[in-house]
Amino acid sequence: MKSHTEYLTLNVPGRMEFLNITSRVEEAVRSSGVQEGIVLVNAMHITASVFINDDESGLHADYKEWLERLAPFDASPQRYRHNRTGEDNADAHMKRQVMGREVVVAITKGALDFGPWEQIFYGEFDGNRPKRVLIKVIGE
Amino acid sequence: MKSHTEYLTLNVPGRMEFLNITSRVEEAVRSSGVQEGIVLVNAMHITASVFINDDESGLHADYKEWLERLAPFDASPQRYRHNRTGEDNADAHMKRQVMGREVVVAITKGALDFGPWEQIFYGEFDGNRPKRVLIKVIGE
Amino acid sequence: MKSHTEYLTLNVPGRMEFLNITSRVEEAVRSSGVQEGIVLVNAMHITASVFINDDESGLHADYKEWLERLAPFDASPQRYRHNRTGEDNADAHMKRQVMGREVVVAITKGALDFGPWEQIFYGEFDGNRPKRVLIKVIGE
Repeated sequence: MKSHTEYLTLNVPGRMEFLNITSRVEEAVRSSGVQEGIVLVNAMHITASVFINDDESGLHADYKEWLERLAPFDASPQRYRHNRTGEDNADAHMKRQVMGREVVVAITKGALDFGPWEQIFYGEFDGNRPKRVLIKVIGE
Repeated sequence: MKSHTEYLTLNVPGRMEFLNITSRVEEAVRSSGVQEGIVLVNAMHITASVFINDDESGLHADYKEWLERLAPFDASPQRYRHNRTGEDNADAHMKRQVMGREVVVAITKGALDFGPWEQIFYGEFDGNRPKRVLIKVIGE
Repeated sequence: MKSHTEYLTLNVPGRMEFLNITSRVEEAVRSSGVQEGIVLVNAMHITASVFINDDESGLHADYKEWLERLAPFDASPQRYRHNRTGEDNADAHMKRQVMGREVVVAITKGALDFGPWEQIFYGEFDGNRPKRVLIKVIGE
């Protein structure tokens, strides 16, 4: 069994943003030499997500509005107990649970085995500082 | 390490429906010959889910009502920017994030290592056309 | 390829609670002898979650309130059809979908390859009875 590990560092300006990291994952899969296996891609921070969806700016704006409605940003210590600790990001911990921490993608014949519109995104919900994404390839 | 790849094609009548695909995944695991490992099962389309829950029709009706409340269908271009592109399925991209893209299931002694009520479902949120599910088995 | 399987049994008092199971997963990884690979950790019951987030009691209280707002507990057969079967836990099946069934974590140099605050939690949404969590390690 082969394995290969990479870390991306991303610094997103603004609180909430989605970055397409598909090509970075494809490079890691190529570097691994794995032909058949899986790749795990996960946020290493608990106010961020890795998810698979469409690279369409209208949809991304819809996601932001929708997530804001499900879990509104509120820095005050009234709405969220977590924000009594000096943090202001309780909402980001919730948004991340809706969008997920990680994806696992099949590798077939050396490539990501994707449907027609699947793209991998880093989802930031508490930005303006460097954060890391882990890529782990295993297979043969 | 052994690996085995299969694709299911599903054509669900209606916009939203849940199909039990557990036996199809069990067949793929048997075909693979893997005794110890994992199986990844994922939707290859971004308006669909694969998830694990109960095969109970009342619960499925509850899920539909609940998802419709969290992310209502609205084909008009007013509510969702994504629907200004000619699409009408922005809500389906949200429902899919709540229910998830994929599951990873342990294989122990050649079988899905499941608790008492776990069943694997394909969740369709924008149906009436053929879509694919990927099954990737790795292990030994 | 090595593989290693463990089952935890957890009995949570009260309907909804979060238990930090990180050290139990670390022990399983050590027992496996795997240096490079992945570990799958999943709830074996469909009204429970395994998720990764912060070990901060204020955040956990926020999560409970937020999940109760998204999918309120209601034992009556009026709101949820599932509760016409004699069950009272339809809400728990929804909360579990928001928080997720499973996590997949990379193992690098024999340890969980975690960011600064990542901790693994068992999330119970229908407690007061024993439930199981599966830990499956694969790698080399």
